[in-house]
Amino acid sequence: MSDTFSQTAIRVGLVQMSCGDDRAANLQKALNRTRQAAEQGAEVICLPELFQSRYFCQTEDTSIFEWAEPVPGPATAVFEELAAELDVTVIISLFERRAPGLYHNTAAVIDGREGYIGKYRKMHIPDDPKYYEKFYFTPGDLGFKSFETSRGDLGVLVCWDQWYPEAARLTALRGAEVLFYPTAIGWHPYEQEELGQQQHDAWEVAQRAHAIANGCYVVAVNRVGFEPTPGEEEGGIEFWGQSFVVAPDGSIVARASADEEEVLVVTLDRAQISELRVGWPFFRDRRIDAYEKINQRFIDAEK
Amino acid sequence: MSDTFSQTAIRVGLVQMSCGDDRAANLQKALNRTRQAAEQGAEVICLPELFQSRYFCQTEDTSIFEWAEPVPGPATAVFEELAAELDVTVIISLFERRAPGLYHNTAAVIDGREGYIGKYRKMHIPDDPKYYEKFYFTPGDLGFKSFETSRGDLGVLVCWDQWYPEAARLTALRGAEVLFYPTAIGWHPYEQEELGQQQHDAWEVAQRAHAIANGCYVVAVNRVGFEPTPGEEEGGIEFWGQSFVVAPDGSIVARASADEEEVLVVTLDRAQISELRVGWPFFRDRRIDAYEKINQRFIDAEK
Repeated sequence: MSDTFSQTAIRVGLVQMSCGDDRAANLQKALNRTRQAAEQGAEVICLPELFQSRYFCQTEDTSIFEWAEPVPGPATAVFEELAAELDVTVIISLFERRAPGLYHNTAAVIDGREGYIGKYRKMHIPDDPKYYEKFYFTPGDLGFKSFETSRGDLGVLVCWDQWYPEAARLTALRGAEVLFYPTAIGWHPYEQEELGQQQHDAWEVAQRAHAIANGCYVVAVNRVGFEPTPGEEEGGIEFWGQSFVVAPDGSIVARASADEEEVLVVTLDRAQISELRVGWPFFRDRRIDAYEKINQRFIDAEK
Repeated sequence: MSDTFSQTAIRVGLVQMSCGDDRAANLQKALNRTRQAAEQGAEVICLPELFQSRYFCQTEDTSIFEWAEPVPGPATAVFEELAAELDVTVIISLFERRAPGLYHNTAAVIDGREGYIGKYRKMHIPDDPKYYEKFYFTPGDLGFKSFETSRGDLGVLVCWDQWYPEAARLTALRGAEVLFYPTAIGWHPYEQEELGQQQHDAWEVAQRAHAIANGCYVVAVNRVGFEPTPGEEEGGIEFWGQSFVVAPDGSIVARASADEEEVLVVTLDRAQISELRVGWPFFRDRRIDAYEKINQRFIDAEK
């Protein structure tokens, strides 16, 4: 735990925003909303996944790779300036160009006047119709990370990682008090009526369970609004919004709307982490002698 | 997967019961309710944790060890006879005497006319006020298991295991289509008003998340009713009841009452398992190259 653990609260800011075709406008909006969150008292501000552009993984298009940038690079430089001015910690999701032909879905952490302190590369990469992420992103090779910041130990994971209890566990074992998930999740319009509520429930439940199992806070920051699929007349993704904050007991303490941009500022009581972990001592009883085969793809019967 | 995977449904029976001081009466009730569940169409019937006695872990009492029995032993013999007669699969939770001074909290699986086919020894052992299980039970040493039965591949875990995503994952990786959790969970009367709802929510959420993350069914079978603490005038545990069944999408498909004994029979559609796992392909993208440190107690910063 970092030296600031004795601070009693962390005020987090969730920037739920829509993203359009004008990338410079998206970036400017993100900077403005970061400032707004700080003005509302936020100390740690998280932006949604890949907020500088529309969610480009709806199609496979080689020209999009031109949008990628080094991390640290131009975007971290701009946010470093703002974070220093406001003295806030910022978590930004970026399309990272690491080398020609090698790209990642990366989140950078910028810690106030310290500037850029490190990055996490999304470990679990999805691939579903209109979420063609395996085309764009190589799975991360930095492992699961918690960042010691001036505001506390902050874990950063990205979107699809949300579905993996291993990712949450390993990040919490590294000391994270809060797990941040920049996210871009939505409905296919044709699925929304039949499966929408159930999918959204599952999304919340999976992340509430990370908070419970690990006795930490969870902060999910989603984009909002409809983005049409390029080249299609009707298709697209209706992003859910509904960014939320979960307490260590699994209760949802704040949730943004489903259809509006929103800056949500929430105070996290750090004392709840140690209270919950003493009251529900799950870490005490883990069977670390018996988890080895979690490294297997499947445990096939011997035949 | 067992040869019966092509069957489209598994009808599970949850016996939610109260348990009193008369151990012979508890056993007889469990046998009667098993028969009742079979008459209602259940093919796989699960009893609550340690149903042959009141929840004796409320105190530490050496005389209680006399209640333990070998597994297989007298209780499995009685249930083998009934399971063969009814041609049902039964999961029973037992206080296992393995050797003098060596006891486990064990679940046995009895598969119709095949009889006893194996056991699981509770891996995660709690210890909280009035849940002094570490006094009675040595943590299991059989690892996480799925049992190939005539009705399907059935995972068995016990109560406190519910809080560990590793346990659910490892059992599912062994092929389990359904995770059964015989359980004895309740409120301290003094906590119920303040924390009751939140604790119960967390309990459901944690297990719903196991179903989601692993694309399988979850069946939790709890005891019900108030059991006073021996030697105390007021204290005791109010067991929650509310045994429930979760579908692979995380939705609760059936839930028993909070204060009544109940035999709940629910049909599980096995096709939902493969449908969900194709639609939400979480198994496909697990980072088995990066989970190794889950075997650590905590990942301390290098200092």
